[in-house]
Amino acid sequence: MPRRSPRVEAVALPDHLEPGQLSGKVAVVIDVLRATTTIVRALESGASCVLPVASIEGARMLAHDREGSLLCGERGGIPPEGFALGNSPREYDTDAVGGRACVLSTTNGTRAMHMATGAHEVLIGSITNAHALCAHLISDGRDVVLVCSGTDRRVSLEDCIGAGGIVEGLTGFEADDSALLMLRAMRGATEAHGSLQAAVASSFHAKRLADLGFRDDVALAAELGGAGLVPVFDQATGEITPL
Amino acid sequence: MPRRSPRVEAVALPDHLEPGQLSGKVAVVIDVLRATTTIVRALESGASCVLPVASIEGARMLAHDREGSLLCGERGGIPPEGFALGNSPREYDTDAVGGRACVLSTTNGTRAMHMATGAHEVLIGSITNAHALCAHLISDGRDVVLVCSGTDRRVSLEDCIGAGGIVEGLTGFEADDSALLMLRAMRGATEAHGSLQAAVASSFHAKRLADLGFRDDVALAAELGGAGLVPVFDQATGEITPL
Repeated sequence: MPRRSPRVEAVALPDHLEPGQLSGKVAVVIDVLRATTTIVRALESGASCVLPVASIEGARMLAHDREGSLLCGERGGIPPEGFALGNSPREYDTDAVGGRACVLSTTNGTRAMHMATGAHEVLIGSITNAHALCAHLISDGRDVVLVCSGTDRRVSLEDCIGAGGIVEGLTGFEADDSALLMLRAMRGATEAHGSLQAAVASSFHAKRLADLGFRDDVALAAELGGAGLVPVFDQATGEITPL
Repeated sequence: MPRRSPRVEAVALPDHLEPGQLSGKVAVVIDVLRATTTIVRALESGASCVLPVASIEGARMLAHDREGSLLCGERGGIPPEGFALGNSPREYDTDAVGGRACVLSTTNGTRAMHMATGAHEVLIGSITNAHALCAHLISDGRDVVLVCSGTDRRVSLEDCIGAGGIVEGLTGFEADDSALLMLRAMRGATEAHGSLQAAVASSFHAKRLADLGFRDDVALAAELGGAGLVPVFDQATGEITPL
């Protein structure tokens, strides 16, 4: 008997997940600006793992307990006192993070990862690792739910665009209306603005980051598929490592 | 002091509304296939009002109490016993509904209208009345929340496309990311399928209606702006009448 096509659906916020919606499926958490982009970059640069934490205080405590870890994160564009790195993916090079565990304070991305823990597996998605991610999901063949993180419980266009890029790459999957919404929005925004980078830069959050001096981060986060790595969030240990 | 631009935001399901999100704003309920399209058509054809009811039984009771009313609605494409009309907008001509109150059984649309009652005003939106609706909203100048009804608590692409058509018409409004998502998806789907009608017809619900023999309803529901009428839902009486 031929197996049915795997399905892909999407939520614009983790709050939109229905009870049981993730059961037996792969959840892909997306926070394009900037948590999941930064996580992909940190692991590419050889970080041993990333530990996402919602609060600055929680990050301080976790880093204190974990010898040799790097304390990472920002508030209002500036790393708090005692933090080694901010949230800019461009900071996460091999010199900075190679071989180290990164304790990363990020509100929206952490919240989305923890709200996705009913899934069979929680993967980390960004525009930068979309190709590797889609290749893995196609080979895996399970149903997929794309979980956009949003910003402060509001829908973020850049996460929806990221989700649309992943839907586009999922050859052979059946996309429901929620996934088609993301795919059409990604293509429509790319068409309206002339490029994927300009589409991402049109989002509210991208404009705020540009005002804070992080325009290059927005450009980096919109580079499709350069990163050949799929991070997985271990629901038991809270660690993110490459698959 | 110049007044700030009015804002438009959108939710893909009424369940996504946050407490207080509608306060002081105009809510526009959208159920393209087919409740709000049918309501617009019924009032255009001279129905005195439409009374939306979630259940078949509720509709029977209300119609029984209201002399001269028409019992309208369907399950699985067929009007239940004793029902004068189905849910197809094409049935709602002047001969059928002129001067009559229509008690309309519609699950998703009714639910969305009742979930929107925290708003200053609840209006009925469809692709067919988008021009008249946008003209009214622009003249009114209040902030707007577009409330897509969805189908059985799942996102419906055709409602998102309808919301996008309304965002497009709201000249002078500031669209947040949730509204931009709808606008870009509407344009992207139109581009991908070659026309607005084909975009609407690509939705899951449109395909189901086509299978049930209602392909012409899908085409009618995607005709942009022909109806010059804005229905308002009276939260106290449950009646929908033209503004």
